[in-house]
Amino acid sequence: VVESLIEPLHPADVADLIEHLEPEQRKLFLDITRHALEAETISHLDEALREEVVDQMAPAELAEVVTELDTDDAVDLLEDLDADTQQQVLDSLPAEDRAYLEQGLTFPEDSAGRLMQRELVAISDQWNVGETVDYLRNAEDLPDDFYDLYIVDADKKPVGSVPLSRAMRSKRDIKLTDVMDEELRLVPVDTDQEAVAYLFRQYGLVSAPVVDGDGRLIGVITVDDVVRVIDEEAEEDLLNIVGVSDTDFHAPAYKTAFLRVRWLVVTLVNTLIASFVISRFEGTIGHYPALAVLMPITAAMGGNAGVQVITVTVRALATRDITPNSNVMRLISKELAVGLMNAVVFAIILGAVGGYWFGHIGLGFVLGGAMIFNMVWAGFAGTVIPLVMDRIGLDPATGAGPFLTTTTDCLGFFAFLGLATLFLT
Amino acid sequence: VVESLIEPLHPADVADLIEHLEPEQRKLFLDITRHALEAETISHLDEALREEVVDQMAPAELAEVVTELDTDDAVDLLEDLDADTQQQVLDSLPAEDRAYLEQGLTFPEDSAGRLMQRELVAISDQWNVGETVDYLRNAEDLPDDFYDLYIVDADKKPVGSVPLSRAMRSKRDIKLTDVMDEELRLVPVDTDQEAVAYLFRQYGLVSAPVVDGDGRLIGVITVDDVVRVIDEEAEEDLLNIVGVSDTDFHAPAYKTAFLRVRWLVVTLVNTLIASFVISRFEGTIGHYPALAVLMPITAAMGGNAGVQVITVTVRALATRDITPNSNVMRLISKELAVGLMNAVVFAIILGAVGGYWFGHIGLGFVLGGAMIFNMVWAGFAGTVIPLVMDRIGLDPATGAGPFLTTTTDCLGFFAFLGLATLFLT
Ligand SMILES: [Mg+2]
Ligand SMILES: [Mg+2]
Ligand SMILES: [Mg+2]
Ligand SMILES: [Mg+2]
Ligand SMILES: [Mg+2]
Ligand SMILES: [Mg+2]
Ligand SMILES: [Mg+2]
Ligand SMILES: [Mg+2]
Ligand SMILES: [Mg+2]
Ligand SMILES: [Mg+2]
Ligand SMILES: [Mg+2]
Ligand SMILES: [Mg+2]
Ligand SMILES: [Mg+2]
Repeated sequence: VVESLIEPLHPADVADLIEHLEPEQRKLFLDITRHALEAETISHLDEALREEVVDQMAPAELAEVVTELDTDDAVDLLEDLDADTQQQVLDSLPAEDRAYLEQGLTFPEDSAGRLMQRELVAISDQWNVGETVDYLRNAEDLPDDFYDLYIVDADKKPVGSVPLSRAMRSKRDIKLTDVMDEELRLVPVDTDQEAVAYLFRQYGLVSAPVVDGDGRLIGVITVDDVVRVIDEEAEEDLLNIVGVSDTDFHAPAYKTAFLRVRWLVVTLVNTLIASFVISRFEGTIGHYPALAVLMPITAAMGGNAGVQVITVTVRALATRDITPNSNVMRLISKELAVGLMNAVVFAIILGAVGGYWFGHIGLGFVLGGAMIFNMVWAGFAGTVIPLVMDRIGLDPATGAGPFLTTTTDCLGFFAFLGLATLFLT
Repeated sequence: VVESLIEPLHPADVADLIEHLEPEQRKLFLDITRHALEAETISHLDEALREEVVDQMAPAELAEVVTELDTDDAVDLLEDLDADTQQQVLDSLPAEDRAYLEQGLTFPEDSAGRLMQRELVAISDQWNVGETVDYLRNAEDLPDDFYDLYIVDADKKPVGSVPLSRAMRSKRDIKLTDVMDEELRLVPVDTDQEAVAYLFRQYGLVSAPVVDGDGRLIGVITVDDVVRVIDEEAEEDLLNIVGVSDTDFHAPAYKTAFLRVRWLVVTLVNTLIASFVISRFEGTIGHYPALAVLMPITAAMGGNAGVQVITVTVRALATRDITPNSNVMRLISKELAVGLMNAVVFAIILGAVGGYWFGHIGLGFVLGGAMIFNMVWAGFAGTVIPLVMDRIGLDPATGAGPFLTTTTDCLGFFAFLGLATLFLT
């Protein structure tokens, strides 16, 4: 009964259904449906759950699943198996499949080599449309779906591509080389997936040819996989800025807790440094407890403004609105200007509030002054930290938030308490 | 000379080139190349720059540009014109184009109606492959690129779709209705773009048919536009969490400053509330200035942990790992568990550090206790705030960060200073 319910569903929907079951229900569901589950469904499961399912399958069953998948999805599944099972599965595959998958496993994660599938449509540069159509109608080992024909020379090097819609609209006696686009967006196999995503987005591609070191066509990347990459990369930036390293909903709580510790430790060190700064002014605070009341304001405003700037900078780098060679000085000076304008506005407001609250004009000036100082710093550090990270080859978003707030906390407390010590005592 | 340099470039690259020039160089460049710029290039420019360029063009020139673009890009360009120019451009277009564009402008921004192009390939459900190919070879008003054939009945209602690769592999005498997918992912014209993006991602689509209220095929959405939407939506979540409402690099500084004020005001209110909480304990702080030194720690750890949880929750909603009907309690209880585990660990560490630093065991216990309280709260509020926002129909990310940190600041200060007042005085 359950089998007939899931049969009409898309594999991605069946995978979601499984993900939304309670753990005990899930066990039951899998026990019943295991043999009716499509390979595609398993490949769509979130990583933690996929491992659960795969762990319970025999190597022979796994080999069957792997054969049904495109090589990119097959490699994705194989890489998570323990070495023994992986070898057993590989050994039971036909030689060509095995060779593709073994090679696939050697490409670095997040590279074009992992994104590409080996199943592709390569057409000789000698053929005309009629010969191509006849080949496509009769060939057996073609991918399920394809969007572009890649035209290759005798060395298997791509010389051009023809979108299917154009091939379909051309008469049978036209040579493909006469209608092909010669401007190919070739992807070397070791390209980072972020650069691949950029190509697809920039040029509106639906597929792109992947070439090896000798320039020979060895695979094709399709847009459905790139959509997932774009989503992953945007998530990565988001998580890096706020300092989370994992969103796997199905991972157990203790694992998630452990993965979050890293950035909490950074926060811990941050606040201890900030506390140390404050402790240098314990005497002043003892005299004027009002300082302790207003003290968090400067730090919070600077931190918040700075994280805004970081976010804008990280996005500008991701969309290539700024590159190391252009627009950098424009961005920094713009953010300094933005920081200064808002700093002045908020310094006036908060200076007035603080001065009025404690009936002390000097306190208002100290608060306003510290505010201007910290918010301009936030504009500067918020642009420069991600730019420097990027320049030294790190992900610009990595830890930018925690680093920045350390500086804005320390400078915020230091500027406020320092000015207070100078002018109020 | 400049014209011959840009001629071989892709319009998206020319647009980027223009975006990376200094303002004066840009003016010069545009003066020289205006008449050689392709319509596609103008359509690829960032919004602020596109307005600059478009403002300097005569309605007749604009009408020419609009005619060259697909309707989705044409509407995108038209919507930014002032009402007069818009009307003049529309008036100078052929009747059918004008009707499409006028209708396009009536669809809400961020809806399928804005994403779709009216240029599409509809095939009668009576045709076989041969008739279809002959039609495609001879028709003149087809889109430049298309990926699926939509099969429609006599009422223009879609009944199925055939991927081009399948059509191309089928023999001429096969009826399209025999090879079509009947499971269509139909998009009603008023669907939100976020739901459209979900469809494409979930089912790996390259194009989807858009239907009007009567179920008639009126347009098609292609994956290149959806890629941009996915990017935009991920950016929107990121910006909402940190409280920025705009990343337009080319907007002038005063505009950007103004747009950022909104969330800085929220932060301002936050910190004033927090300051008010602290002010209730001015007496205690006057006795023990050490409290002012350790006070920021609880607030910072809670705020940071909470923003991590918010981010995870917003992502889980975006990827539909949780929906209003499922997995909600599991997420809340998981995050409470994660919060408690990390709270205990950091309470022990920081309690020990604080106690040792000021040589006062009681102070260590107060700090540790406040920490546990605030981090568990962060786990709870970090899941519940976005879920409630979502339930009442708002974007779950909107202001979640600022709201959460208000609560973690206030509770952090209150718990720490309150416990200190109870146990240390
Ligand atoms: Mg899923
Ligand atoms: Mg994997
Ligand atoms: Mg694939
Ligand atoms: Mg990356
Ligand atoms: Mg990145
Ligand atoms: Mg841009
Ligand atoms: Mg651009
Ligand atoms: Mg277009
Ligand atoms: Mg627009
Ligand atoms: Mg389009
Ligand atoms: Mg949205
Ligand atoms: Mg959203
Ligand atoms: Mg999922």
